Amino acid sequence: MAITVVGSVAFDSIETPAGRRERCLGGAATYFSLAASYFTSVRVIAVVGEDFSAEQQSVFDARRIDTQGIERSSGKSFFWEGSYLENLNEAKTHNTELNVFGSFQPKIPDAYRDSEFLFLANIDPVLQKRVREAMPHAKLVAGDTMNYWIKDHRDALKQVLKGLDILLINDTETRMLAGNNNLVQAARGVLDMGPRMLVVKHGEYGATAFYGKSPNGFGAKTFRAPALPLEEVIDPTGAGDSFAGGFFGYLASQKELTPGTFRRAMFYGSVMGSFAVERFGTERLQQLSRETIDERFAMFRELTHLD
Amino acid sequence: MAITVVGSVAFDSIETPAGRRERCLGGAATYFSLAASYFTSVRVIAVVGEDFSAEQQSVFDARRIDTQGIERSSGKSFFWEGSYLENLNEAKTHNTELNVFGSFQPKIPDAYRDSEFLFLANIDPVLQKRVREAMPHAKLVAGDTMNYWIKDHRDALKQVLKGLDILLINDTETRMLAGNNNLVQAARGVLDMGPRMLVVKHGEYGATAFYGKSPNGFGAKTFRAPALPLEEVIDPTGAGDSFAGGFFGYLASQKELTPGTFRRAMFYGSVMGSFAVERFGTERLQQLSRETIDERFAMFRELTHLD
Repeated sequence: MAITVVGSVAFDSIETPAGRRERCLGGAATYFSLAASYFTSVRVIAVVGEDFSAEQQSVFDARRIDTQGIERSSGKSFFWEGSYLENLNEAKTHNTELNVFGSFQPKIPDAYRDSEFLFLANIDPVLQKRVREAMPHAKLVAGDTMNYWIKDHRDALKQVLKGLDILLINDTETRMLAGNNNLVQAARGVLDMGPRMLVVKHGEYGATAFYGKSPNGFGAKTFRAPALPLEEVIDPTGAGDSFAGGFFGYLASQKELTPGTFRRAMFYGSVMGSFAVERFGTERLQQLSRETIDERFAMFRELTHLD
Repeated sequence: MAITVVGSVAFDSIETPAGRRERCLGGAATYFSLAASYFTSVRVIAVVGEDFSAEQQSVFDARRIDTQGIERSSGKSFFWEGSYLENLNEAKTHNTELNVFGSFQPKIPDAYRDSEFLFLANIDPVLQKRVREAMPHAKLVAGDTMNYWIKDHRDALKQVLKGLDILLINDTETRMLAGNNNLVQAARGVLDMGPRMLVVKHGEYGATAFYGKSPNGFGAKTFRAPALPLEEVIDPTGAGDSFAGGFFGYLASQKELTPGTFRRAMFYGSVMGSFAVERFGTERLQQLSRETIDERFAMFRELTHLD
């Protein structure tokens, strides 16, 4: 099944202990769609400026990603500059220029409207809601958000959460959204806001899915996927979006959504996140094969399974 | 097989968001031996003062722990006072009184000398080394240490590491010991110092074992055990020592040490750590049964396994 994703396509200037890159192709929708493209067909809704050239277009084309929903606008693309010099787990933002993204009004090509899988990457919840409503055939809707929307646009965000099947956010965002420092209690609080499943991304410690009610007294049911302990993290940018792409891409590729499907999806999410950080920007995500991905999936199983 | 453990038996005054307890029974050797006692017989080497009464003795007796190696000295027992009000993952120490522990000279009862499993809990590495040398029959030796010894007693600690089969420490200690911020590189650095296996405890994110050399280019081989996402952490004190007790206790209970044995030991470590934090002090560890433990083991498998 095809996934439609709405989110940012951007340029990033990134500094990490491994070096510096100027104006890499980036943005949540970019990382998401590259990661998901190894599992299913992907359609992108975004806006870019005149600086988005054939070079960037070719990255999407090489992965057969449908870009007719990427609007070309006059002006410059979204630009972000950040560094991870002190802490690989948390970016320090030096500069954000919204540019054409500041007045983004998602336009959905007719060819996208039959998508049964919809991913609302981290953008203004008002836009997330509008896209959700314009895609009535979506049978599984997942999304992301960030501290900015949680803090200052809570009412709009809550409207989005009501229509989400799966929310993917990190530890800090989960605690902030629920106003509770205990992760399990916070997760239950978030589930009460609407999503049927919450996937909390723990960075180098993997991710935990919370869903339903547990019979064992531990609140929501849980499943934990590991992250690979990595010898070298070159650039953490996009790891969370790549997790989401692997997770949702695998789900969309499956005929049936069973508890086992969701568990494997969690592992594929971790796998794609682990590839993303091995090179700057989207470099590693451009060069994978399903065989390489499945080898790492097997390594993750070996890393965590008793037998 | 019996385990001999050398370490602290102490009184702790603890404040957490869940409340405050004065002078609970504590100390690394206490938590370790209670946790290990559900798997095998345990012998303790420690020193206590006149304040160690029949009440504390009965805690060990109820779990059939051999305490003939606990020396009664004139003076007061080791006392620690700390809180976790801001951060459940890191204790803030308000007061440490070494008391009789300050001049601790471990004395090994003859009945202990045939122990094939030896655990050197976090004490002065000079004493760890002396106990190791006095126990030549120990075929598997594991140990713990802390930032204080890593920073200011590095040479003595390095002598201990050469004689260790397994070192169990946390993320920060691993990075500090190796002088490397990347956990995988740091783990390899620590393995180069002598231990055949390094178990890094990640608190609420579980633990990772590093051992041997990996053929897949990721440095040392790894195995990751989860921690249970807990709805309520009452008191984190002793979680790491309880992990060590479950881990080493299970190993000592097995006829053969295979890769599968070590994996299950990692899970039992996480299981015992998860029980420890459910009540203040050693309260929860006193009241378990092997059945309750194995139920949680099954829950941990369910939490992490694909099928």
